[in-house]
Amino acid sequence: MLLLRHCRCLTRVGLLKTQRVQLLQGVALPVAVCSSHRGHKSGQYQRSHGPNWRHALAGLLAGTGAVLAYGLHHSQTEQAATTIVQPIAPASSLPIYTQDEVTKHRSVEEGVWVTYKGSVYDITEFVSMHPGGDKILLAAGGALEPFWALYAVHSQDHVLEILSEYKVGELSAEDRRMQQSVKSTDPYSTDPERHPALRINSLKPFNAEPPAEILSDNYITPSAIFFKRNHLPVPQVDPKSYRLQVEGVPGGAPLSLSLEELKTCFPKHTVTATLQCAGNRRSEMNKVKQVKGLNWGIAAISNATWSGARLKDVLLAAGYMPEVVRQTSHVQFEGLDSDVTGTTYGASIPLNKAVSEEGDVLLAYQMNGEDLPADHGYPVRVVVPGTVGARNVKWLGKIIVSEEESSSHWQQNDYKGFSPATDWDTVDFKSAPAIQELPIQSAITQPAEGAVVERSAEEVTVKGYAWSGGGREVVRVDVSLDGGRTWQVAQLQSSEKGQVPAPSPPPGRAWAWKLWELTAPLPPAAQELEIVCKAVDNSYNMQPDSVAPIWNLRGVLSNAWHRVKVTVKEDEEEQKLL
Amino acid sequence: MLLLRHCRCLTRVGLLKTQRVQLLQGVALPVAVCSSHRGHKSGQYQRSHGPNWRHALAGLLAGTGAVLAYGLHHSQTEQAATTIVQPIAPASSLPIYTQDEVTKHRSVEEGVWVTYKGSVYDITEFVSMHPGGDKILLAAGGALEPFWALYAVHSQDHVLEILSEYKVGELSAEDRRMQQSVKSTDPYSTDPERHPALRINSLKPFNAEPPAEILSDNYITPSAIFFKRNHLPVPQVDPKSYRLQVEGVPGGAPLSLSLEELKTCFPKHTVTATLQCAGNRRSEMNKVKQVKGLNWGIAAISNATWSGARLKDVLLAAGYMPEVVRQTSHVQFEGLDSDVTGTTYGASIPLNKAVSEEGDVLLAYQMNGEDLPADHGYPVRVVVPGTVGARNVKWLGKIIVSEEESSSHWQQNDYKGFSPATDWDTVDFKSAPAIQELPIQSAITQPAEGAVVERSAEEVTVKGYAWSGGGREVVRVDVSLDGGRTWQVAQLQSSEKGQVPAPSPPPGRAWAWKLWELTAPLPPAAQELEIVCKAVDNSYNMQPDSVAPIWNLRGVLSNAWHRVKVTVKEDEEEQKLL
Repeated sequence: MLLLRHCRCLTRVGLLKTQRVQLLQGVALPVAVCSSHRGHKSGQYQRSHGPNWRHALAGLLAGTGAVLAYGLHHSQTEQAATTIVQPIAPASSLPIYTQDEVTKHRSVEEGVWVTYKGSVYDITEFVSMHPGGDKILLAAGGALEPFWALYAVHSQDHVLEILSEYKVGELSAEDRRMQQSVKSTDPYSTDPERHPALRINSLKPFNAEPPAEILSDNYITPSAIFFKRNHLPVPQVDPKSYRLQVEGVPGGAPLSLSLEELKTCFPKHTVTATLQCAGNRRSEMNKVKQVKGLNWGIAAISNATWSGARLKDVLLAAGYMPEVVRQTSHVQFEGLDSDVTGTTYGASIPLNKAVSEEGDVLLAYQMNGEDLPADHGYPVRVVVPGTVGARNVKWLGKIIVSEEESSSHWQQNDYKGFSPATDWDTVDFKSAPAIQELPIQSAITQPAEGAVVERSAEEVTVKGYAWSGGGREVVRVDVSLDGGRTWQVAQLQSSEKGQVPAPSPPPGRAWAWKLWELTAPLPPAAQELEIVCKAVDNSYNMQPDSVAPIWNLRGVLSNAWHRVKVTVKEDEEEQKLL
Repeated sequence: MLLLRHCRCLTRVGLLKTQRVQLLQGVALPVAVCSSHRGHKSGQYQRSHGPNWRHALAGLLAGTGAVLAYGLHHSQTEQAATTIVQPIAPASSLPIYTQDEVTKHRSVEEGVWVTYKGSVYDITEFVSMHPGGDKILLAAGGALEPFWALYAVHSQDHVLEILSEYKVGELSAEDRRMQQSVKSTDPYSTDPERHPALRINSLKPFNAEPPAEILSDNYITPSAIFFKRNHLPVPQVDPKSYRLQVEGVPGGAPLSLSLEELKTCFPKHTVTATLQCAGNRRSEMNKVKQVKGLNWGIAAISNATWSGARLKDVLLAAGYMPEVVRQTSHVQFEGLDSDVTGTTYGASIPLNKAVSEEGDVLLAYQMNGEDLPADHGYPVRVVVPGTVGARNVKWLGKIIVSEEESSSHWQQNDYKGFSPATDWDTVDFKSAPAIQELPIQSAITQPAEGAVVERSAEEVTVKGYAWSGGGREVVRVDVSLDGGRTWQVAQLQSSEKGQVPAPSPPPGRAWAWKLWELTAPLPPAAQELEIVCKAVDNSYNMQPDSVAPIWNLRGVLSNAWHRVKVTVKEDEEEQKLL
């Protein structure tokens, strides 16, 4: 963001349109060559800066992709921010603003203000020129730092130079201090800082999802915006004293592993896997009839690269012998997160998934190449690829092989699917199996519900994600612009944009989502588009058409076709003709 | 059938209604105690035979189930037919009829005639009294023998006694000979005899399905009515000279096995597995828009018990070593059935399915406890549980481990799914994966489309089957009587009715279907019911709501909700009141 500052005059002479076309291919490209000063005439600008601009854009296109993911690159980003970005000297002539005053400026109508290292900027005029589009508004009323950490391309000298010209004041000293975390005796007081882009569904325990329009920008979701689904306060775990207990292996002996032993005694295995909350898209069920649960949008799903020891290897070390253990056994997991009574989070998976050579179940200590973040289970979590998020137990304390499933509330009396006919008076949780593998899923991340598409654009680009549980690979996504009457096939993407696609996974081990995109001509007569997507996996399972027939009292497994309505705005000239 | 002969007079005094209620619980129960002669008054009958009738019915209910399956019991049946059933002596006074004349009598309006061992019977009057209901009409115009073989309870002396009283003539000598198989130089001339109940979609090659109302009578489908899906003429294989070739195992050596070696050198493994044609329910897609392919109804699916050697064991014997073979390899199968150019039927499955301990892939030489029938691949076929029928190659000649899928037409250019937008001008068969695991499926077998339900019955019983591919267990079937607005949960059945249910299969190995049933009150005001079913598997995949959005040019993978419309007939008295 903040990259096309001095180019705004170009909107009037059409060059920006050309830029936008090129930018579309690169997603949120920084075009950071506009170093001239305010007051230049557009013609002058075009002459003196046109070639440089093209040169710089070409360089960026040839690079490693426009958007560098926070999770993979934030070390570099932090470093860059420290070394390149110098605090802008306070100008005593500018007014002091409180955070409250800044927060009031969150729209183009009210003005769009942001803070950066204690200074306040009014970037209202810049919003329409931002190469990343409306995403700039996610930072409105708040600090830029976390967004620039996410989109590392901003950490360049000239971006700061541009920003400096929008400065309108200083943040009050008190609010600068307030930007640090506040600690208290609240059990949640030690919860980590979170990225401000996250849309919070519940603060305590913390449950939040990224804005949908950001989600599909990265094939690997940056850890900072990876959806968070905590059931309890985040435990503080000392990696030095941490022990992982393994119990109940028939014929084996209890095992206790330090973090170091887990890391060094077992081969490190890396898997890219999508996790999804069972309640993803619950808000659509709530529209049919109220359900119990967090009102998730479409982004309680994210994709990351996980590294750790294979659960299978650890169970073998604990004495697991296939011929001794019943096929119908389970592997239970206990978290170190607990409520006031000391009850810990718990869940279990079938033994055959845990010990399968092809199950890829990890005791992960890294996410996106770094130590697990606190919100994602530091120091060790289970990653059960293809399986509902709830079984991917974080802050893992204990593993128990048992003939029984976990006795925890979350295994026995939650995370199960029921008929639309079942209500809280009639529900028998014993009658349904615990959710393990999830069904085929997809959703539209762009455009957003209610967006406006210009008729002059002549076409519309639709983006989204698609994933299926159980290692079933997404093989096709169909997109409709007319509510499901006619369909077009979207382009699938299984790596970061611009990178060489990863080879197809072995059968049954497609753990990662696919992003997808379709650019299609605008239907000539339509004033409104009802955009719909539906995905197909390689077992040819398809999403159900509508929400009501799959409605269930807990609002889980919401995987009907996703629908987004957008308006087509006729051009003024055409409108006059009409 | 033909069991309540002399009870027809009772319809007028209401006893039959009582019988029907009891019979409903036992499915097609023979009530074979009516040995009195025509002309008895109903009152007399009730007095003299009532107690006996109750006694016999109780005995049958206490037996091993009312309907004995042909596939499991036809040896006994054949024997019974030979020893018990004596040819009925031709009465010279009765006329001679040709088969053509008999064939004209296939409805209650035209008269219902059947033949049995050369005699002709007019059973029109008996139809309404048949405990098995309308199923008796399946035999109309043809021979009784194959149906009695299927429903072995008919093979009792008193049934013959009843039948004899409906005799109206003799079948011509020529037609008696014609009932033997006709042989010719036609490549299909050596195809085996088939059960006349089958609904034929194509005669050459032979493709046929059982009537839906029969399908769900047996948890294990009798082999004779198991759906037949041949691509080519049935080959004549001499079991003595038969060899199974195994090739292409990296690091191994070619292997050639006799039938005897296959049976004796490898452990015999038994699996109950449902097979389904990719084109099952294609007729519903044809109603949306014409597709290419056989117009299957809802019964191109059946369930059987298969025994044979594990493919995994045979590959190990051929030198298979997991560490030597690429994970992405395939196992190709070649059939011994071929066209005039010598091209054989072929297909392949992913190697990981073939060698998985939990894949249960068989080289089967038995079906339902007996040698494979000719139509089902005698002497050896592949059974790939959870996988589309087309990969379960029959008359197996060769197994080839390869880095490539089978190059056969049926693997490369058929049995693939496409978007509704894809037509024969735009289709690129390379763009879609070969169908392997099938998606969740269910259908209603009773009542039939257009059936009439009496208001006085006060309730309606709906029956059907449900199955999912990939070893995913069906966990719920929802049934709606109002087109999908409200739902009720059906009762699932995973063994023959009246038998102890089989224990739950290990996770991922639920290869067999579940039958289901729901008896629900008739909605008070409804004059028509739109009955709908949808199933859910343990990955919580659900069937799509409607056919059009999953329509594809080959008409495969037709698994939308199944819908059946029935009429509610008001009672005469109530109608008068209205």
